[in-house]
Amino acid sequence: MDNNTFALILAGGSGKRMGNPDKPKQFLMLGGKPILVHTIEKFCVAVEFRSVIVLCPDMWVRQTKDLVSRYLPHLDHIEVVAGGPVRNDTIMKGLDYIEKRYGMDDDTIVVTHDAVRPFVSHRIIQENVAAMEKFDACDTVVAATDTIVESTNGEMISCIPNRRNYYQGQTPQSFKATKLRTLYGRLSDEDKLILTDACKIFTMCEEPVALIRGDVSNIKITYPHDMRVARAMMEQQGETDA
Amino acid sequence: MDNNTFALILAGGSGKRMGNPDKPKQFLMLGGKPILVHTIEKFCVAVEFRSVIVLCPDMWVRQTKDLVSRYLPHLDHIEVVAGGPVRNDTIMKGLDYIEKRYGMDDDTIVVTHDAVRPFVSHRIIQENVAAMEKFDACDTVVAATDTIVESTNGEMISCIPNRRNYYQGQTPQSFKATKLRTLYGRLSDEDKLILTDACKIFTMCEEPVALIRGDVSNIKITYPHDMRVARAMMEQQGETDA
Repeated sequence: MDNNTFALILAGGSGKRMGNPDKPKQFLMLGGKPILVHTIEKFCVAVEFRSVIVLCPDMWVRQTKDLVSRYLPHLDHIEVVAGGPVRNDTIMKGLDYIEKRYGMDDDTIVVTHDAVRPFVSHRIIQENVAAMEKFDACDTVVAATDTIVESTNGEMISCIPNRRNYYQGQTPQSFKATKLRTLYGRLSDEDKLILTDACKIFTMCEEPVALIRGDVSNIKITYPHDMRVARAMMEQQGETDA
Repeated sequence: MDNNTFALILAGGSGKRMGNPDKPKQFLMLGGKPILVHTIEKFCVAVEFRSVIVLCPDMWVRQTKDLVSRYLPHLDHIEVVAGGPVRNDTIMKGLDYIEKRYGMDDDTIVVTHDAVRPFVSHRIIQENVAAMEKFDACDTVVAATDTIVESTNGEMISCIPNRRNYYQGQTPQSFKATKLRTLYGRLSDEDKLILTDACKIFTMCEEPVALIRGDVSNIKITYPHDMRVARAMMEQQGETDA
Protein backbone atom coordinates (compact mmCIF):
# COMPACT_ATOMS: atom_id res chain seq x y z
CA MET A 1 0.00 0.00 0.00
CA ASP A 2 1.21 3.49 -0.84
CA ASN A 3 2.11 5.89 1.94
CA ASN A 4 -0.84 8.28 2.14
CA THR A 5 0.20 10.44 5.07
CA PHE A 6 0.99 14.10 4.31
CA ALA A 7 2.18 17.01 6.41
CA LEU A 8 0.68 20.43 5.67
CA ILE A 9 2.83 23.20 7.11
CA LEU A 10 0.69 26.32 7.36
CA ALA A 11 2.89 29.34 6.72
CA GLY A 12 0.16 31.82 5.89
CA GLY A 13 0.87 34.47 8.53
CA SER A 14 1.81 37.96 7.47
CA GLY A 15 3.81 38.85 10.58
CA LYS A 16 1.74 41.92 11.38
CA ARG A 17 1.66 41.11 15.10
CA MET A 18 5.47 40.93 15.18
CA GLY A 19 5.60 44.59 14.21
CA ASN A 20 7.18 43.68 10.88
CA PRO A 21 4.53 43.30 8.19
CA ASP A 22 7.15 43.02 5.46
CA LYS A 23 8.58 39.75 6.69
CA PRO A 24 6.34 36.84 7.75
CA LYS A 25 7.34 35.40 11.12
CA GLN A 26 8.26 32.01 9.70
CA PHE A 27 11.26 33.63 7.97
CA LEU A 28 12.74 35.09 11.15
CA MET A 29 16.06 33.57 12.17
CA LEU A 30 16.29 31.31 15.19
CA GLY A 31 19.52 29.54 16.04
CA GLY A 32 21.02 30.21 12.60
CA LYS A 33 18.03 29.02 10.56
CA PRO A 34 14.64 30.46 9.66
CA ILE A 35 11.86 29.30 11.99
CA LEU A 36 10.16 27.53 9.08
CA VAL A 37 13.24 25.38 8.46
CA HIS A 38 13.23 24.15 12.07
CA THR A 39 9.58 23.22 11.72
CA ILE A 40 10.05 21.39 8.42
CA GLU A 41 12.98 19.45 9.89
CA LYS A 42 10.80 18.13 12.71
CA PHE A 43 8.43 16.69 10.13
CA CYS A 44 11.23 15.18 8.09
CA VAL A 45 12.59 13.02 10.90
CA ALA A 46 9.51 12.16 12.97
CA VAL A 47 7.35 10.12 10.61
CA GLU A 48 7.72 8.98 7.04
CA PHE A 49 5.47 11.46 5.30
CA ARG A 50 4.91 10.96 1.60
CA SER A 51 5.35 14.70 1.23
CA VAL A 52 5.79 17.68 3.50
CA ILE A 53 3.80 20.45 1.83
CA VAL A 54 4.46 24.04 2.86
CA LEU A 55 1.54 26.36 2.16
CA CYS A 56 2.39 30.06 2.08
CA PRO A 57 1.00 33.26 0.56
CA ASP A 58 1.35 33.39 -3.22
CA MET A 59 3.82 36.28 -3.07
CA TRP A 60 6.16 34.30 -0.79
CA VAL A 61 6.25 31.02 -2.75
CA ARG A 62 9.46 31.83 -4.59
CA GLN A 63 11.34 32.92 -1.47
CA THR A 64 10.10 29.87 0.45
CA LYS A 65 11.28 27.55 -2.34
CA ASP A 66 14.70 29.24 -2.32
CA LEU A 67 14.91 28.84 1.42
CA VAL A 68 14.05 25.12 1.27
CA SER A 69 16.65 24.43 -1.41
CA ARG A 70 19.29 26.41 0.47
CA TYR A 71 18.77 24.93 3.94
CA LEU A 72 17.36 21.50 3.12
CA PRO A 73 18.95 20.56 -0.25
CA HIS A 74 19.25 16.87 0.69
CA LEU A 75 15.49 16.43 1.15
CA ASP A 76 13.41 15.75 -1.96
CA HIS A 77 9.92 15.37 -0.51
CA ILE A 78 9.32 18.97 0.49
CA GLU A 79 7.00 21.00 -1.70
CA VAL A 80 5.91 24.64 -1.58
CA VAL A 81 2.39 25.54 -2.67
CA ALA A 82 0.37 28.76 -2.57
CA GLY A 83 -2.29 28.85 0.16
CA GLY A 84 -5.50 30.84 0.41
CA PRO A 85 -6.53 34.04 2.18
CA VAL A 86 -7.59 32.35 5.46
CA ARG A 87 -6.45 29.29 7.36
CA ASN A 88 -9.10 26.78 6.33
CA ASP A 89 -8.96 27.94 2.74
CA THR A 90 -5.23 27.26 2.85
CA ILE A 91 -5.83 23.73 4.16
CA MET A 92 -8.30 23.13 1.30
CA LYS A 93 -5.68 24.27 -1.19
CA GLY A 94 -3.40 21.65 0.33
CA LEU A 95 -6.01 18.96 -0.11
CA ASP A 96 -6.60 20.01 -3.73
CA TYR A 97 -2.88 19.78 -4.37
CA ILE A 98 -2.62 16.30 -2.81
CA GLU A 99 -5.57 15.05 -4.83
CA LYS A 100 -4.18 16.30 -8.13
CA ARG A 101 -0.61 15.23 -7.57
CA TYR A 102 -0.99 11.99 -5.58
CA GLY A 103 -4.66 11.04 -5.60
CA MET A 104 -6.76 10.90 -2.47
CA ASP A 105 -8.91 8.26 -0.82
CA ASP A 106 -10.70 7.74 2.50
CA ASP A 107 -7.47 6.74 4.20
CA THR A 108 -5.48 9.81 3.17
CA ILE A 109 -4.23 11.60 6.28
CA VAL A 110 -3.16 15.22 6.63
CA VAL A 111 -1.21 16.41 9.66
CA THR A 112 -1.62 20.19 9.67
CA HIS A 113 0.82 22.29 11.66
CA ASP A 114 1.64 25.97 12.26
CA ALA A 115 4.91 26.95 10.59
CA VAL A 116 5.62 29.12 13.64
CA ARG A 117 5.60 26.22 16.13
CA PRO A 118 9.17 24.96 15.60
CA PHE A 119 9.43 23.19 18.97
CA VAL A 120 6.87 20.48 18.20
CA SER A 121 8.20 17.12 19.39
CA HIS A 122 8.51 13.81 17.56
CA ARG A 123 6.20 12.21 20.11
CA ILE A 124 3.44 14.71 19.35
CA ILE A 125 3.72 14.15 15.59
CA GLN A 126 3.78 10.39 16.02
CA GLU A 127 0.76 10.39 18.33
CA ASN A 128 -1.14 12.50 15.81
CA VAL A 129 -0.52 9.98 13.04
CA ALA A 130 -1.29 7.03 15.34
CA ALA A 131 -4.63 8.58 16.38
CA MET A 132 -5.76 8.50 12.73
CA GLU A 133 -6.06 4.70 13.02
CA LYS A 134 -9.03 5.20 15.34
CA PHE A 135 -10.34 8.68 14.65
CA ASP A 136 -11.06 11.01 11.72
CA ALA A 137 -9.76 14.10 13.53
CA CYS A 138 -7.49 14.93 16.43
CA ASP A 139 -6.27 18.11 18.09
CA THR A 140 -3.08 18.69 20.10
CA VAL A 141 -3.83 20.47 23.38
CA VAL A 142 -2.40 21.26 26.78
CA ALA A 143 -4.43 21.64 29.99
CA ALA A 144 -5.22 25.30 30.63
CA THR A 145 -2.65 26.61 33.09
CA ASP A 146 -4.32 29.95 33.64
CA THR A 147 -7.85 30.43 34.85
CA ILE A 148 -10.16 30.78 31.86
CA VAL A 149 -12.35 33.88 31.99
CA GLU A 150 -15.33 34.51 29.74
CA SER A 151 -16.43 38.02 28.83
CA THR A 152 -18.85 38.77 26.04
CA ASN A 153 -18.32 42.55 26.12
CA GLY A 154 -14.59 42.74 26.91
CA GLU A 155 -15.24 44.86 30.01
CA MET A 156 -16.92 42.70 32.63
CA ILE A 157 -16.60 38.99 33.38
CA SER A 158 -19.63 37.02 32.24
CA CYS A 159 -18.46 33.66 33.59
CA ILE A 160 -15.45 31.83 35.06
CA PRO A 161 -15.92 28.25 33.85
CA ASN A 162 -14.34 25.24 35.56
CA ARG A 163 -10.73 25.23 34.39
CA ARG A 164 -10.48 21.44 34.58
CA ASN A 165 -12.60 21.14 31.44
CA TYR A 166 -10.52 23.58 29.42
CA TYR A 167 -7.49 23.12 27.23
CA GLN A 168 -5.37 25.41 25.10
CA GLY A 169 -5.23 24.33 21.48
CA GLN A 170 -1.86 23.85 19.80
CA THR A 171 -1.07 22.08 16.54
CA PRO A 172 -0.72 19.61 14.83
CA GLN A 173 -4.34 19.00 14.04
CA SER A 174 -4.75 15.86 11.95
CA PHE A 175 -7.57 14.73 9.74
CA LYS A 176 -8.81 12.14 7.32
CA ALA A 177 -8.60 14.31 4.24
CA THR A 178 -11.80 13.39 2.42
CA LYS A 179 -13.87 13.59 5.60
CA LEU A 180 -12.49 17.05 6.32
CA ARG A 181 -13.36 18.23 2.82
CA THR A 182 -16.84 16.76 2.95
CA LEU A 183 -17.65 18.44 6.26
CA TYR A 184 -16.15 21.75 5.11
CA GLY A 185 -18.39 21.60 2.04
CA ARG A 186 -21.45 21.46 4.28
CA LEU A 187 -20.70 24.84 5.88
CA SER A 188 -22.18 28.11 4.69
CA ASP A 189 -19.86 30.74 3.19
CA GLU A 190 -20.38 32.81 6.33
CA ASP A 191 -19.38 29.94 8.60
CA LYS A 192 -16.31 29.32 6.48
CA LEU A 193 -15.15 32.89 6.92
CA ILE A 194 -15.49 33.03 10.69
CA LEU A 195 -13.99 29.59 11.35
CA THR A 196 -10.46 30.07 12.59
CA ASP A 197 -9.92 26.49 13.62
CA ALA A 198 -10.04 23.39 11.43
CA CYS A 199 -11.11 21.07 14.27
CA LYS A 200 -14.16 23.26 14.69
CA ILE A 201 -15.31 22.09 11.25
CA PHE A 202 -15.73 18.68 12.89
CA THR A 203 -17.29 19.87 16.14
CA MET A 204 -19.79 22.09 14.28
CA CYS A 205 -20.88 19.00 12.37
CA GLU A 206 -20.99 17.05 15.67
CA GLU A 207 -18.20 14.76 14.53
CA PRO A 208 -15.75 13.48 17.19
CA VAL A 209 -12.28 14.99 17.64
CA ALA A 210 -9.74 13.18 19.84
CA LEU A 211 -7.32 15.02 22.11
CA ILE A 212 -3.56 14.51 21.78
CA ARG A 213 -1.41 15.61 24.70
CA GLY A 214 0.74 18.56 23.61
CA ASP A 215 3.57 20.23 25.47
CA VAL A 216 4.09 23.67 27.01
CA SER A 217 7.29 24.00 24.99
CA ASN A 218 5.35 23.67 21.70
CA ILE A 219 4.91 27.45 21.63
CA LYS A 220 3.52 29.52 18.79
CA ILE A 221 5.72 32.44 17.83
CA THR A 222 3.27 35.31 17.48
CA TYR A 223 4.54 38.28 19.43
CA PRO A 224 8.06 39.71 19.97
CA HIS A 225 7.84 38.28 23.51
CA ASP A 226 7.52 34.77 21.98
CA MET A 227 10.60 35.36 19.86
CA ARG A 228 12.64 36.14 22.98
CA VAL A 229 11.34 32.97 24.63
CA ALA A 230 12.12 30.95 21.49
CA ARG A 231 15.69 32.28 21.37
CA ALA A 232 16.19 31.33 25.02
CA MET A 233 14.82 27.82 24.38
CA MET A 234 17.04 27.42 21.35
CA GLU A 235 20.13 28.47 23.30
CA GLN A 236 19.34 25.91 25.96
CA GLN A 237 19.30 23.27 23.25
CA GLY A 238 22.95 24.07 22.67
CA GLU A 239 22.64 26.22 19.60
CA THR A 240 23.59 29.85 19.16
CA ASP A 241 21.69 32.49 17.34
CA ALA A 242 23.07 33.68 14.01
CA MET B 1 -8.27 60.00 55.26
CA ASP B 2 -6.06 57.05 56.10
CA ASN B 3 -4.55 55.00 53.30
CA ASN B 4 -6.66 51.85 53.19
CA THR B 5 -5.11 50.05 50.22
CA PHE B 6 -3.24 46.82 50.96
CA ALA B 7 -1.30 44.38 48.82
CA LEU B 8 -1.68 40.68 49.60
CA ILE B 9 1.15 38.66 48.06
CA LEU B 10 0.03 35.04 47.90
CA ALA B 11 3.06 32.83 48.43
CA GLY B 12 1.24 29.65 49.36
CA GLY B 13 2.61 27.35 46.67
CA SER B 14 4.55 24.27 47.68
CA GLY B 15 6.64 24.00 44.52
CA LYS B 16 5.53 20.43 43.75
CA ARG B 17 5.11 21.17 40.05
CA MET B 18 8.69 22.48 39.85
CA GLY B 19 9.93 19.01 40.79
CA ASN B 20 11.27 20.37 44.07
CA PRO B 21 8.73 19.96 46.86
CA ASP B 22 11.24 21.03 49.52
CA LYS B 23 11.59 24.57 48.24
CA PRO B 24 8.57 26.68 47.28
CA LYS B 25 8.96 28.35 43.87
CA GLN B 26 8.86 31.86 45.28
CA PHE B 27 12.26 31.23 46.89
CA LEU B 28 14.01 30.23 43.65
CA MET B 29 16.70 32.65 42.52
CA LEU B 30 16.14 34.85 39.50
CA GLY B 31 18.66 37.52 38.53
CA GLY B 32 20.41 37.35 41.91
CA LYS B 33 17.28 37.61 44.05
CA PRO B 34 14.48 35.24 45.09
CA ILE B 35 11.40 35.49 42.87
CA LEU B 36 9.35 36.70 45.84
CA VAL B 37 11.67 39.68 46.35
CA HIS B 38 11.18 40.81 42.74
CA THR B 39 7.43 40.60 43.24
CA ILE B 40 7.44 42.53 46.53
CA GLU B 41 9.62 45.25 44.95
CA LYS B 42 7.02 45.83 42.21
CA PHE B 43 4.41 46.52 44.87
CA CYS B 44 6.71 48.82 46.81
CA VAL B 45 7.27 51.26 43.96
CA ALA B 46 4.01 51.17 42.00
CA VAL B 47 1.43 52.48 44.45
CA GLU B 48 1.55 53.70 48.00
CA PHE B 49 0.21 50.66 49.82
CA ARG B 50 -0.35 51.01 53.53
CA SER B 51 1.21 47.58 53.88
CA VAL B 52 2.46 44.84 51.58
CA ILE B 53 1.44 41.62 53.34
CA VAL B 54 3.10 38.39 52.25
CA LEU B 55 1.03 35.31 53.05
CA CYS B 56 2.95 32.02 53.10
CA PRO B 57 2.61 28.58 54.68
CA ASP B 58 3.12 28.59 58.44
CA MET B 59 6.33 26.55 58.18
CA TRP B 60 7.90 29.14 55.83
CA VAL B 61 7.07 32.31 57.78
CA ARG B 62 10.45 32.50 59.51
CA GLN B 63 12.45 31.99 56.31
CA THR B 64 10.30 34.52 54.46
CA LYS B 65 10.82 37.11 57.21
CA ASP B 66 14.58 36.52 57.06
CA LEU B 67 14.56 36.94 53.32
CA VAL B 68 12.63 40.23 53.49
CA SER B 69 15.00 41.69 56.08
CA ARG B 70 18.03 40.53 54.11
CA TYR B 71 16.97 41.78 50.66
CA LEU B 72 14.66 44.66 51.55
CA PRO B 73 16.00 46.06 54.84
CA HIS B 74 15.15 49.64 53.91
CA LEU B 75 11.41 48.95 53.59
CA ASP B 76 9.33 49.00 56.77
CA HIS B 77 5.84 48.32 55.45
CA ILE B 78 6.30 44.68 54.46
CA GLU B 79 4.77 42.09 56.75
CA VAL B 80 4.82 38.29 56.64
CA VAL B 81 1.76 36.40 57.86
CA ALA B 82 0.79 32.70 57.82
CA GLY B 83 -1.79 31.81 55.18
CA GLY B 84 -4.28 28.95 55.04
CA PRO B 85 -4.37 25.56 53.32
CA VAL B 86 -5.99 26.84 50.09
CA ARG B 87 -5.88 30.10 48.17
CA ASN B 88 -9.12 31.71 49.28
CA ASP B 89 -8.53 30.67 52.85
CA THR B 90 -5.19 32.43 52.62
CA ILE B 91 -6.85 35.60 51.34
CA MET B 92 -9.30 35.47 54.27
CA LYS B 93 -6.37 35.18 56.68
CA GLY B 94 -5.02 38.33 55.06
CA LEU B 95 -8.32 40.14 55.63
CA ASP B 96 -8.44 39.00 59.26
CA TYR B 97 -4.94 40.33 59.75
CA ILE B 98 -5.78 43.71 58.20
CA GLU B 99 -8.91 44.06 60.34
CA LYS B 100 -7.08 43.30 63.58
CA ARG B 101 -4.02 45.40 62.87
CA TYR B 102 -5.42 48.35 60.91
CA GLY B 103 -9.18 48.14 61.07
CA MET B 104 -11.35 47.63 58.00
CA ASP B 105 -14.27 49.48 56.45
CA ASP B 106 -16.23 49.41 53.19
CA ASP B 107 -13.49 51.32 51.39
CA THR B 108 -10.65 49.00 52.35
CA ILE B 109 -9.03 47.63 49.20
CA VAL B 110 -6.93 44.48 48.79
CA VAL B 111 -4.83 43.92 45.68
CA THR B 112 -4.08 40.17 45.68
CA HIS B 113 -1.18 38.88 43.60
CA ASP B 114 0.66 35.62 42.97
CA ALA B 115 4.13 35.67 44.52
CA VAL B 116 5.35 33.80 41.44
CA ARG B 117 4.38 36.54 38.94
CA PRO B 118 7.43 38.80 39.36
CA PHE B 119 7.02 40.54 35.98
CA VAL B 120 3.81 42.36 36.85
CA SER B 121 4.04 45.97 35.65
CA HIS B 122 3.39 49.22 37.47
CA ARG B 123 0.64 50.02 35.00
CA ILE B 124 -1.23 46.83 35.85
CA ILE B 125 -1.01 47.49 39.61
CA GLN B 126 -2.09 51.10 39.16
CA GLU B 127 -5.04 50.16 36.97
CA ASN B 128 -6.15 47.61 39.55
CA VAL B 129 -6.20 50.22 42.29
CA ALA B 130 -7.90 52.78 40.02
CA ALA B 131 -10.65 50.28 39.11
CA MET B 132 -11.63 50.07 42.78
CA GLU B 133 -13.07 53.59 42.51
CA LYS B 134 -15.83 52.22 40.29
CA PHE B 135 -16.02 48.49 41.03
CA ASP B 136 -15.91 46.09 43.99
CA ALA B 137 -13.81 43.52 42.13
CA CYS B 138 -11.48 43.38 39.16
CA ASP B 139 -9.42 40.69 37.45
CA THR B 140 -6.28 41.08 35.32
CA VAL B 141 -6.57 39.12 32.08
CA VAL B 142 -5.08 38.77 28.61
CA ALA B 143 -7.01 37.79 25.49
CA ALA B 144 -6.67 34.05 24.86
CA THR B 145 -3.91 33.58 22.30
CA ASP B 146 -4.52 29.89 21.79
CA THR B 147 -7.78 28.36 20.71
CA ILE B 148 -9.77 27.35 23.79
CA VAL B 149 -10.92 23.73 23.69
CA GLU B 150 -13.50 22.25 26.05
CA SER B 151 -13.46 18.57 26.96
CA THR B 152 -15.47 17.14 29.83
CA ASN B 153 -13.81 13.69 29.71
CA GLY B 154 -10.22 14.64 28.78
CA GLU B 155 -10.31 12.40 25.69
CA MET B 156 -12.65 13.95 23.13
CA ILE B 157 -13.50 17.59 22.41
CA SER B 158 -16.93 18.56 23.67
CA CYS B 159 -16.88 22.11 22.31
CA ILE B 160 -14.63 24.75 20.75
CA PRO B 161 -16.09 28.04 22.01
CA ASN B 162 -15.56 31.36 20.26
CA ARG B 163 -12.08 32.46 21.29
CA ARG B 164 -12.97 36.13 21.11
CA ASN B 165 -14.98 35.82 24.33
CA TYR B 166 -12.20 34.11 26.27
CA TYR B 167 -9.37 35.48 28.34
CA GLN B 168 -6.60 33.94 30.39
CA GLY B 169 -6.67 35.04 34.00
CA GLN B 170 -3.54 36.51 35.57
CA THR B 171 -3.21 38.49 38.78
CA PRO B 172 -3.58 40.97 40.49
CA GLN B 173 -7.19 40.47 41.42
CA SER B 174 -8.44 43.35 43.51
CA PHE B 175 -11.40 43.61 45.82
CA LYS B 176 -13.26 45.74 48.30
CA ALA B 177 -12.31 43.76 51.38
CA THR B 178 -15.59 43.70 53.30
CA LYS B 179 -17.60 42.84 50.19
CA LEU B 180 -15.27 39.95 49.43
CA ARG B 181 -15.61 38.59 52.94
CA THR B 182 -19.39 38.96 52.95
CA LEU B 183 -19.77 37.09 49.67
CA TYR B 184 -17.31 34.39 50.75
CA GLY B 185 -19.39 33.89 53.90
CA ARG B 186 -22.41 33.08 51.75
CA LEU B 187 -20.74 30.08 50.13
CA SER B 188 -21.13 26.52 51.35
CA ASP B 189 -18.08 24.71 52.77
CA GLU B 190 -18.07 22.56 49.65
CA ASP B 191 -18.04 25.59 47.35
CA LYS B 192 -15.23 27.10 49.37
CA LEU B 193 -13.08 24.03 48.88
CA ILE B 194 -13.48 23.78 45.10
CA LEU B 195 -13.10 27.51 44.44
CA THR B 196 -9.62 28.08 43.07
CA ASP B 197 -10.23 31.66 42.03
CA ALA B 198 -11.20 34.60 44.23
CA CYS B 199 -13.03 36.46 41.43
CA LYS B 200 -15.28 33.43 41.12
CA ILE B 201 -16.62 34.25 44.60
CA PHE B 202 -18.10 37.36 42.97
CA THR B 203 -19.32 35.73 39.77
CA MET B 204 -20.99 32.88 41.71
CA CYS B 205 -22.90 35.51 43.66
CA GLU B 206 -23.70 37.31 40.37
CA GLU B 207 -21.69 40.34 41.41
CA PRO B 208 -19.82 42.26 38.68
CA VAL B 209 -16.08 41.86 38.10
CA ALA B 210 -14.26 44.33 35.82
CA LEU B 211 -11.48 43.29 33.47
CA ILE B 212 -8.04 44.89 33.68
CA ARG B 213 -5.74 44.48 30.67
CA GLY B 214 -2.79 42.31 31.67
CA ASP B 215 0.36 41.57 29.72
CA VAL B 216 1.81 38.41 28.17
CA SER B 217 5.04 39.08 30.05
CA ASN B 218 3.21 38.85 33.40
CA ILE B 219 3.91 35.11 33.48
CA LYS B 220 3.28 32.74 36.37
CA ILE B 221 6.30 30.62 37.23
CA THR B 222 4.81 27.16 37.67
CA TYR B 223 6.86 24.67 35.66
CA PRO B 224 10.62 24.37 34.99
CA HIS B 225 9.87 25.66 31.46
CA ASP B 226 8.57 28.90 33.01
CA MET B 227 11.75 29.26 35.03
CA ARG B 228 13.82 29.11 31.83
CA VAL B 229 11.59 31.74 30.23
CA ALA B 230 11.83 33.91 33.34
CA ARG B 231 15.63 33.71 33.34
CA ALA B 232 15.70 34.75 29.68
CA MET B 233 13.37 37.68 30.36
CA MET B 234 15.48 38.76 33.31
CA GLU B 235 18.67 38.65 31.26
CA GLN B 236 17.08 40.84 28.63
CA GLN B 237 16.32 43.37 31.34
CA GLY B 238 20.08 43.72 31.79
CA GLU B 239 20.55 41.60 34.85
CA THR B 240 22.57 38.44 35.25
CA ASP B 241 21.61 35.33 37.11
CA ALA B 242 23.44 34.60 40.34
